[in-house]
Amino acid sequence: MKISQKLQKAHSSSHRPTYSFEFFVPKTSQGVQNLYDRMDRMYELGPQFIDITWNAGGRLSNLTCEMVSTSQSIIGLETCMHLTCTGMPIQLVENALKDAYNSGCQNILALRGDPPHGSESTSANGNELVPEFRYAKDLIKYIRAKYGDYFDIGVAGYPEGHPEESDIDVLIGYLKEKVDAGATFIITQMFYDVDNFLSWVEKCRNAGITVPIIPGIMPISTYASFMRRATWCEINIPKNFLDQLEPISGDDNLVREKGTELVADMCEKMVAAGIQHLHFYTMNLEKATVMVLDKLGILPEYIPEEDKKNPPLPWRQSLALGREDETVRPIFWKNRKKSYVARTQDWDEFPNGRWGDSRSPAYGELENYGVLLRHSAAKAIEIWGSPKTVEDLRDLFVGYLSGKIKSLPWSDAPISNEVDSIKDQLLDINSRGFLTINSQPAVNGVKSTHPVHGWGPSNGYVYQKAYLELLVPPEVADKVVHAVEKDPDVTYYCVDSRGNLRTNSPVDGPNAVTWGIYPGKEVIQPTIVEKISFLAWKDEAFRLGAEWARCYDEDTESRRLVMGIVDKWYLINIVHNDFQDPDAIFRLFNNIH
Amino acid sequence: MKISQKLQKAHSSSHRPTYSFEFFVPKTSQGVQNLYDRMDRMYELGPQFIDITWNAGGRLSNLTCEMVSTSQSIIGLETCMHLTCTGMPIQLVENALKDAYNSGCQNILALRGDPPHGSESTSANGNELVPEFRYAKDLIKYIRAKYGDYFDIGVAGYPEGHPEESDIDVLIGYLKEKVDAGATFIITQMFYDVDNFLSWVEKCRNAGITVPIIPGIMPISTYASFMRRATWCEINIPKNFLDQLEPISGDDNLVREKGTELVADMCEKMVAAGIQHLHFYTMNLEKATVMVLDKLGILPEYIPEEDKKNPPLPWRQSLALGREDETVRPIFWKNRKKSYVARTQDWDEFPNGRWGDSRSPAYGELENYGVLLRHSAAKAIEIWGSPKTVEDLRDLFVGYLSGKIKSLPWSDAPISNEVDSIKDQLLDINSRGFLTINSQPAVNGVKSTHPVHGWGPSNGYVYQKAYLELLVPPEVADKVVHAVEKDPDVTYYCVDSRGNLRTNSPVDGPNAVTWGIYPGKEVIQPTIVEKISFLAWKDEAFRLGAEWARCYDEDTESRRLVMGIVDKWYLINIVHNDFQDPDAIFRLFNNIH
Repeated sequence: MKISQKLQKAHSSSHRPTYSFEFFVPKTSQGVQNLYDRMDRMYELGPQFIDITWNAGGRLSNLTCEMVSTSQSIIGLETCMHLTCTGMPIQLVENALKDAYNSGCQNILALRGDPPHGSESTSANGNELVPEFRYAKDLIKYIRAKYGDYFDIGVAGYPEGHPEESDIDVLIGYLKEKVDAGATFIITQMFYDVDNFLSWVEKCRNAGITVPIIPGIMPISTYASFMRRATWCEINIPKNFLDQLEPISGDDNLVREKGTELVADMCEKMVAAGIQHLHFYTMNLEKATVMVLDKLGILPEYIPEEDKKNPPLPWRQSLALGREDETVRPIFWKNRKKSYVARTQDWDEFPNGRWGDSRSPAYGELENYGVLLRHSAAKAIEIWGSPKTVEDLRDLFVGYLSGKIKSLPWSDAPISNEVDSIKDQLLDINSRGFLTINSQPAVNGVKSTHPVHGWGPSNGYVYQKAYLELLVPPEVADKVVHAVEKDPDVTYYCVDSRGNLRTNSPVDGPNAVTWGIYPGKEVIQPTIVEKISFLAWKDEAFRLGAEWARCYDEDTESRRLVMGIVDKWYLINIVHNDFQDPDAIFRLFNNIH
Repeated sequence: MKISQKLQKAHSSSHRPTYSFEFFVPKTSQGVQNLYDRMDRMYELGPQFIDITWNAGGRLSNLTCEMVSTSQSIIGLETCMHLTCTGMPIQLVENALKDAYNSGCQNILALRGDPPHGSESTSANGNELVPEFRYAKDLIKYIRAKYGDYFDIGVAGYPEGHPEESDIDVLIGYLKEKVDAGATFIITQMFYDVDNFLSWVEKCRNAGITVPIIPGIMPISTYASFMRRATWCEINIPKNFLDQLEPISGDDNLVREKGTELVADMCEKMVAAGIQHLHFYTMNLEKATVMVLDKLGILPEYIPEEDKKNPPLPWRQSLALGREDETVRPIFWKNRKKSYVARTQDWDEFPNGRWGDSRSPAYGELENYGVLLRHSAAKAIEIWGSPKTVEDLRDLFVGYLSGKIKSLPWSDAPISNEVDSIKDQLLDINSRGFLTINSQPAVNGVKSTHPVHGWGPSNGYVYQKAYLELLVPPEVADKVVHAVEKDPDVTYYCVDSRGNLRTNSPVDGPNAVTWGIYPGKEVIQPTIVEKISFLAWKDEAFRLGAEWARCYDEDTESRRLVMGIVDKWYLINIVHNDFQDPDAIFRLFNNIH
């Protein structure tokens, strides 16, 4: 969705100020992974959008496109892609726009970038440069000509002048030209002088610039970084900032606290003057920005209970192109949502409550999507140790469930509070050797606003069938199957890595395991268990095991132990269909020894 | 479904004997209506199938086709059509088969019929006769040639001989020829001599006849009719029948009781000898047959609780061609199911849980389907009196709800026990002038085997949202709309006969008001409320009012009162979406005066 539309929608229904975050492209792939984790967490802060900086040329600009795609389609953040034009081969600009389009990204921040040195007409690698791309407005015209109104286009504003042009009125003239060329919003350079900013905004308005103007705000982390950036950007530091920060400059904690106060004050002043949206230059850090938002009292935790909105579905929606109508997913990828989105990105049609034939198109090949173990061998051993016996494995799973271990090969994230109500029972069965890699508790019609299980519109009720997914050795698998087949309320699938399948499911069609009832609607059934997607997941689950095994040297006990899971164990999913009896699924294990 | 398949299925899962009923075509259209009501009631007795006799030539044979269609597609009874061949124009045979096919009927009882007199080669109206149709086997061959295996074909068996041929062995030879020609089951002429029947069955088996043999049984209603039919069919009356019935021949009740005993005895004897299915010649009467089934202890009420099967859906399924996958219906026609089936019979596709675009194809025109008031003016006035004031109308609706009046213009059948739990509240609001023509109580997850609300497989839970449909004058409509709009849990549609519509429904899509959760399945949502079908129902509802008004002479108070409903009143449907609060829908009316 376009940023201008998002802001209009947000501000028409509430007077609460909104905010957005800027991230830059890290230099290492581990840095990228860590940033994804951080973006994933910061999603919960409810930004209206985030933006990803552009790094002209080579690997890093490809990485910009990749990060935009990941942010938009997998993390589900509305994303704005920076794009500079001078010195850029036309093909690179075109590719970047096409990638953005394909990711479902509808927002471009069009920047001039560094001017070319001398009069070069080709780039370093010999590609033709575009002589028309002298200014950002040229890029804007190019985008409008190629893509019409598809993209919202943002441009940079300079309330305190520009290194190459200090005359504010001349700069406002340039800004007006960019807006006239088709820009739809303005994000400013960082500043700390609010009075100057507000008078600059007034000048812009007087010059006939009517699009939204978004102030760019740099939270203060340390005294040194604060001074360095302000100097670099040649911006004015108000006297009270210096007066208050200079004396405590040696104490990072104090600087951050005082800096938070000062930045929060400037935000409040802007909000009081009618500015509704704040854009934070996060420098890929979380804390300083969160402290400002906290001080301002506009974090989600400060939203009154009655204004709170639950997520529209129990899993986070992708904002990728063509996925707007996606409303159904198999439960199997609950803890591996990135690989689900990646492996289904080529689908023409997504399951949407009338799943029909679209529920089980071919899943993408595992190899093509970077779905494998996310940690290096060294890191994997650091996290999961070197289990030598089945007892060690039990301890590992118990450690994950009790929060001591933050991930498992099959779960990228720490155990979620969704399973709090069944934590004791999960600990019990895992300590007895029924290793669970996925689960959900039964939920019998709680309000859709329920803080843990709620999703969808207000005035609804949500339900879940209890679900468990286990890894067990063959002899245990036999016992489990024997036990669950006695209970007419249970459906199961049991499979090994070679695809030997046992099931008591009467049909191949989906079993809805999460659903919601809402006023004036049909029943929404966003999570299902069914055969074909389970078989696709099975490949991934055993492959993750194999990747983990390879973290250990050949001829080690750990390698043999973990490869034994892949070669011999079974993956079993169990749905207890009597959702009115939440403990029933665990009682199944009482008589298995 | 084919009778042979149905019987095989029934007998493979249970040793309980099954049964079927024969009806003949009544001579008057009121007689047909009454028979439909009787068939509708007798559906509850759970016959495996029913059959409708053929009446060669003219109006009555058309009526056979019409009754087969109604029985199969609207009443939902598996139906077998009798068809005679001698003296029949080929076109009539062809039309009858095509009609049966189009109705979803898959069973034909192929009969010779009366032989032509002399050597006529054309029928009375000049149509060419088919000289090859000399025997039933000719018709069988014709059906097999034209329709392959589509139909099950039954033939008549004569355990006590035939008026034209008394040699049993010759007759068995003929029967074998019919089976060899393609007949798949045999129904016998009526008889009372079980020993003779059983030995005849043995002879048939010895002659190589392996298809099911179904005994035809005529219950005994009065002594006179018993003797007349036995004589007419030239069958043997066992001595004990005469000994026991003759002395009490003057007392109809005693004859029926004793006759029930005698017929039940012969049935038991046959069942003990391995006969699994009993076919009753009902003579369009209910009581004598029911008494025999009751005596045999094989009525549904004798089925042990654990063997009972609930209906697969909350409304009765049509067995018409192409409707196998129909699993969704609008609630509006709950009390007018015949007109719903009739008005949708031309649909290519029926809503089936993935309703998509198929939920609202064009409903058939009212005029084409006999959907109007079923009673004559005189009968209507007899049932509903001549209301002169709105208070009279209230009394009428209250009378219907309390069971004193057996139908309303909008409800063909007496009030159902489904509304027992809300009867008091319905009586209250109707007595206050909110006239309800349809309603269902909220149901919050009762077992799918619940005796009143249950449907679908065992081990499930069923739910309903509370529903009310009201007829009210304009000023009351305003108040109702005002009251319900305050409640975010309520969705409504309010419309007058000219189509002026008010609604607070956010979307035109369906609101599922009945749904069920079952092991291993998606959520089943068989009943919905949605706009387009409500507008189609609105036309029917007001048209029924107009038909009722026309039962009264012009310039009478009753005519003016009822036409006032059609011209000025509103039809409102209200769904209370909070199904966990069953009384909420009635609390809406507390503050409307």
